[in-house]
Amino acid sequence: MESFPARLFARIRATNSRVCLGIDPRPHQHPLTHPHRFQDDPAQLAKGVVRYFRDIIEASEEVLACCKLQAAFFEVLGIPGLIAMAQLIADLKSRYIPVILDAKRGDIGITSAAYARAYLGDGVFGSDALTVNPYLGSDGLEPFIEEAGQNGRGLFVLVKTSNPGSRDFQDLELASGQKLYERVAEHLHAYAQPTRDESGYSFVGAVVGATHPRELATLRQALPHCPLLVPGYGSQGASAEDAAAAFDANGLGAIVNASRSLTYLCDTGDYAERSRQAVLAMRDALNEALERRFG
Amino acid sequence: MESFPARLFARIRATNSRVCLGIDPRPHQHPLTHPHRFQDDPAQLAKGVVRYFRDIIEASEEVLACCKLQAAFFEVLGIPGLIAMAQLIADLKSRYIPVILDAKRGDIGITSAAYARAYLGDGVFGSDALTVNPYLGSDGLEPFIEEAGQNGRGLFVLVKTSNPGSRDFQDLELASGQKLYERVAEHLHAYAQPTRDESGYSFVGAVVGATHPRELATLRQALPHCPLLVPGYGSQGASAEDAAAAFDANGLGAIVNASRSLTYLCDTGDYAERSRQAVLAMRDALNEALERRFG
Repeated sequence: MESFPARLFARIRATNSRVCLGIDPRPHQHPLTHPHRFQDDPAQLAKGVVRYFRDIIEASEEVLACCKLQAAFFEVLGIPGLIAMAQLIADLKSRYIPVILDAKRGDIGITSAAYARAYLGDGVFGSDALTVNPYLGSDGLEPFIEEAGQNGRGLFVLVKTSNPGSRDFQDLELASGQKLYERVAEHLHAYAQPTRDESGYSFVGAVVGATHPRELATLRQALPHCPLLVPGYGSQGASAEDAAAAFDANGLGAIVNASRSLTYLCDTGDYAERSRQAVLAMRDALNEALERRFG
Repeated sequence: MESFPARLFARIRATNSRVCLGIDPRPHQHPLTHPHRFQDDPAQLAKGVVRYFRDIIEASEEVLACCKLQAAFFEVLGIPGLIAMAQLIADLKSRYIPVILDAKRGDIGITSAAYARAYLGDGVFGSDALTVNPYLGSDGLEPFIEEAGQNGRGLFVLVKTSNPGSRDFQDLELASGQKLYERVAEHLHAYAQPTRDESGYSFVGAVVGATHPRELATLRQALPHCPLLVPGYGSQGASAEDAAAAFDANGLGAIVNASRSLTYLCDTGDYAERSRQAVLAMRDALNEALERRFG
């Protein structure tokens, strides 16, 4: 199997799109699954979730670089929600759309190995890439790196997240003069540098929020071999200019996620077409920002 | 509903036990679920997991303070594994044994709120307490605190984990002179202090590994209102003396987890009785260490 960055970048070139469509089911906001319709029937509700996002994916697929499923919004729907998550993963695989599972897992080594098999293996939740939390350190990260490397999958390790609270710990200044997130980035660079492929990129990537454009530009330099997963565009407030700092001069090396601003746009049967229009507008805005940046 | 610490400490007094039984399914090591028996039938395998741990819980229940389910080992078994997790949570609730879900969740605020509803609400995965990762900061933690506070549930936030890699980031020295984990502890103290109940303890607890006995003693002082969940006993190498540093002078304020060393003891039908003997030995070792420490 080709490496994860090779597959992702081939798709970016083929679609001319750097948009990662975020799938965060909030069934109370969907026209297919208003709460009064399915409040006592979680299985029907989960089926409605699958149909809603399948419609959106089908309408937008030729302009999507990849999709990101947020595990929390499936887990809160219980067993039917997890079945829905497996169905959407299978659907995306059948369309050859790379699927990132945003589950932010991380534990001690032996337990991280179980998470890695669950989400980077061949089971029903096996995805092309997984988000990982670094707080547990090396032996918490390495089982994910090993599993991803063996199976041609990818990782995005949290470095500087898009939320306001990211300043509480990630921005702490260390005795060395670095900030904590810079130290985490340095640690990741040591994994990414020796595992880069012909594209110059490794399967070990990083999460950096577009809501911090200065830090994003610095981290793009500090992590030359890490694909960047960039949240924060749209509802969280970052612009296409902000997000453009994540890319290299070839317009590669990153994907930009938006969830709410692409998928909760109307309360009628038009939702899939409205999402497609929003994805197209985001694609074009990113491409124009890259054009301005790199000329 | 009584507060989480009140329920936990009532149970510690009733059982005279500070043992948290860790449930980490590894079906290839169970006598009921050898891989050659169920390799093509994940549903049967998951049923075997439920039966194995039900037998162990039933044999040991009068000497268990609580149980901790490690989510990773259920998630890796796919949908049948998650059904098994829900069944074991229901089984423990029906026995009034407090159940801690060790899932180490954490995300941006809106997503943490979904995880909080999933694991601290009334759904099939609703548990008495959840482990939480602090890397995302305040807005990642607060939805868990809000949900737990409303529902009489508890949290254990990762402070200093039991694994060797915990030194990589958690031990980093900050410009302030503190270590990162000490700063995280200070942050938790600010949540725990105003939410303590008559016992003096809050529902906001912390995870501190017994494999770091010096840090454990310091954190017991620094976090006087936080119940401590203490992993690392047994297979990971910590002793009863090491773990005793987690308790207050009343022998309360903490629980000590062991998983592998209590549940993978033999390859025959005797497994439940063997586990009971191991739980009893651990209970007595902890109580004797507390007796020596506090007299």
